[in-house]
Amino acid sequence: MAKTTNDRILIIGAGLCGTLLAVRMAQRGYEVALHERLSDMRTMEVAGGRSINLALSDRGLQALASAGLKEQVLEACIPMHGRMIHGVDGDLRLSKYSGREGEYINSVSRGGLNMTLLDKAESFDNLTLTFQSKCSHVELESGVAFFQNKAGETERVEADVVIGTDGAGSAVRRSMMDRTPDLLFNYSQDFLRTGYKELCIPPGDGGTHRIDKNALHIWPRGAFMTIALPNLDGSFTVTMFHPFEGEAGFNTLNSSDRLNAFFEQHYPDLLVHLPTLTEDYFNHPVGVLGTIKCYPWQAFGKALLLGDAAHAIVPFYGQGMNASFEDVRVFDETVERFEGDWEKIFKVFQDERVGNTNAIADLAVDNFQEMRDKVDDIPFIRKRQLEMQLERTYKDYYSKYSLVTFKPGLPYAEAMKIGRMQDDFLLKVCAEREVEDISLEKVYQELKNMQG
Amino acid sequence: MAKTTNDRILIIGAGLCGTLLAVRMAQRGYEVALHERLSDMRTMEVAGGRSINLALSDRGLQALASAGLKEQVLEACIPMHGRMIHGVDGDLRLSKYSGREGEYINSVSRGGLNMTLLDKAESFDNLTLTFQSKCSHVELESGVAFFQNKAGETERVEADVVIGTDGAGSAVRRSMMDRTPDLLFNYSQDFLRTGYKELCIPPGDGGTHRIDKNALHIWPRGAFMTIALPNLDGSFTVTMFHPFEGEAGFNTLNSSDRLNAFFEQHYPDLLVHLPTLTEDYFNHPVGVLGTIKCYPWQAFGKALLLGDAAHAIVPFYGQGMNASFEDVRVFDETVERFEGDWEKIFKVFQDERVGNTNAIADLAVDNFQEMRDKVDDIPFIRKRQLEMQLERTYKDYYSKYSLVTFKPGLPYAEAMKIGRMQDDFLLKVCAEREVEDISLEKVYQELKNMQG
Repeated sequence: MAKTTNDRILIIGAGLCGTLLAVRMAQRGYEVALHERLSDMRTMEVAGGRSINLALSDRGLQALASAGLKEQVLEACIPMHGRMIHGVDGDLRLSKYSGREGEYINSVSRGGLNMTLLDKAESFDNLTLTFQSKCSHVELESGVAFFQNKAGETERVEADVVIGTDGAGSAVRRSMMDRTPDLLFNYSQDFLRTGYKELCIPPGDGGTHRIDKNALHIWPRGAFMTIALPNLDGSFTVTMFHPFEGEAGFNTLNSSDRLNAFFEQHYPDLLVHLPTLTEDYFNHPVGVLGTIKCYPWQAFGKALLLGDAAHAIVPFYGQGMNASFEDVRVFDETVERFEGDWEKIFKVFQDERVGNTNAIADLAVDNFQEMRDKVDDIPFIRKRQLEMQLERTYKDYYSKYSLVTFKPGLPYAEAMKIGRMQDDFLLKVCAEREVEDISLEKVYQELKNMQG
Repeated sequence: MAKTTNDRILIIGAGLCGTLLAVRMAQRGYEVALHERLSDMRTMEVAGGRSINLALSDRGLQALASAGLKEQVLEACIPMHGRMIHGVDGDLRLSKYSGREGEYINSVSRGGLNMTLLDKAESFDNLTLTFQSKCSHVELESGVAFFQNKAGETERVEADVVIGTDGAGSAVRRSMMDRTPDLLFNYSQDFLRTGYKELCIPPGDGGTHRIDKNALHIWPRGAFMTIALPNLDGSFTVTMFHPFEGEAGFNTLNSSDRLNAFFEQHYPDLLVHLPTLTEDYFNHPVGVLGTIKCYPWQAFGKALLLGDAAHAIVPFYGQGMNASFEDVRVFDETVERFEGDWEKIFKVFQDERVGNTNAIADLAVDNFQEMRDKVDDIPFIRKRQLEMQLERTYKDYYSKYSLVTFKPGLPYAEAMKIGRMQDDFLLKVCAEREVEDISLEKVYQELKNMQG
């Protein structure tokens, strides 16, 4: 089929995924219309209390590279080389992400990154940006979308294809859900019985960081935990992950006295860095954490879901944004292969991708367990030591974490399969012996053999 | 807490489950208001093309017994003692459901059974029935439901508790879904890539049945199948289960010629009994088959889901109605235990029940495979023979099918666990040897040991 780059692509949702997608499609020469429900974030204060920094790693960087944005984004990042684990007694232990040099993840401002992408999008003549344009629904067969504009009027927008990058609460996905029997639309939403709330460690004197800036800090406490990621201005975004009910529950920590007593007992070395704990805690909402899966992602060769709209995941593998950016890269490659045939592009893309995003969704839930109550477990600590030694010694060995985080060429589903097999084996070895008593070469060979 | 039987219970949906529930709650003395979207089926012709007979077995009968309706319903049933398997060459083979006498399932008219329940419901002074009253939504905290009545007006109905028995497309469940973050409402809908369509074998001369009336007939053909259940008037309701696409797909069988040629090739002994094949096929819709799971089933101690509204399942275990009736029995027992405390009743009920309805949902999907392409498989046939011998010989042995169908005291989740363990073991034994070469006593002992 002929290249049809004068096709009009309507993208709904100018978050991270939608804006990167718009940039790539504009670079390909399509007529792109990008609509966003909210105001232009570049002209307003960003609302606090929601996740404001994110971990950017190789999969996301690869997608940014394809749009020519990698270097610029990396300049605004803070490298995090491992997890800094804070004991109740104030002990610190760094658990590195990789045994190799140059393998680390990056703390990046969600707002800053989104604004970089919007600036880039605005530089294209064949891309229009419309803010305060809220999608109500999409007529899927015809590719017509309906929006409420800032004057409160209904606008009708026609396009050759409509792509929903409108996040976990996607209106485009809702339009597919409304056509359930026609599309045989499979859907699931699954929530953790744990919520989150954001706090802040302010900068130290002269904009310095009060705790190690090159780590992702964790206070693991079994049934609950808190983490902190560094910001460029010297502050840290702190996120409590606690159950709703029970001793550590958000509903129980409902007075300043209870809150402070709880932090004195469980997070003493964090409390000293939280001068605005009470205000932050009582002003910020409790967020919920859920996984959304669905299939199909496309309807009638006219509409497609991408990013969180197709697969919202919990944040515990630091892969939410990376998976959405990888969607854009894989989609872009699929467009390259079948340009001109949208139905083919959509179907090949969804069928290649859904198994991989399901895998990272499951891995992210697994990692919730690991971060809360495994990082302090003896066999688990030994396993991480062994993995570091293996990675330092053998160039082709990657731990499960490294397969997911530092091997963007490997699909998530493969990373999960190999990674889980390795984990089972290594945990068995580490349950029996101390790391010094384990033959690295023998373990390496057994791991190689397992993968055939 | 005191008994509060003057509480007002609003039940939304007067299908099988809702009407039985209304009867039981009226028998307990509550003020019951039962609202139904459709007209009173007792005053109208029933629309064809949807499943019009069902398999009623011990779990359903136990629930009917608690409402004093078992004997009356059984009089309108046709016993089915096993699966009559029709080969392509016209060969017949009866695979019995149980090796014991008196263990069989019953073909019953959905409409007839529902009317029996409605007649019973109407006999109570403390029960009101309202037809053509379509629920739009429920305000969950307050227990206020909104209906559109037959005049098209909105009616507001208040109650102490609201119970949604409004089926797979439940409006009450949708109201819970709209409160997703508050309720942490987990939900999944999952469709088979196979649909169904109903046909009819008319009665023979003098109202006789043209094929064996005391069996559930199956034409298993691997990727597709057709079944038939007997009706009292001598007819059979025939249901094709075919994929949507491909050689046997509903979308492919789109002309009278193709349809008849297909039936001549794949269902020759059925075709001779289908004088109205073409009319039935092109007049009846294709239905979709899906599984719906959700949790929680209750909200704020004010609203509860029951039956298909909480757990729609595919029909391949013949347990959809039975599971919904069992809901009523278990709910009724929970009311008995905690009468006066609705929140407690709802929470205890949902937590006891959800694991069991999830289990029957999964078993029903498994059975889809089994009915389509295992019933003709050698180790599977041997396993059924061995199971019959075991059931004939040992009073306390129940096959997986019998555990699910004939042991209403055993929760579905337990039946699944024990049944799957037995299946794995027996299939292994039957893959290696013919039934004559297998020691029944030894197999029985091993099965006993496995269950501890």
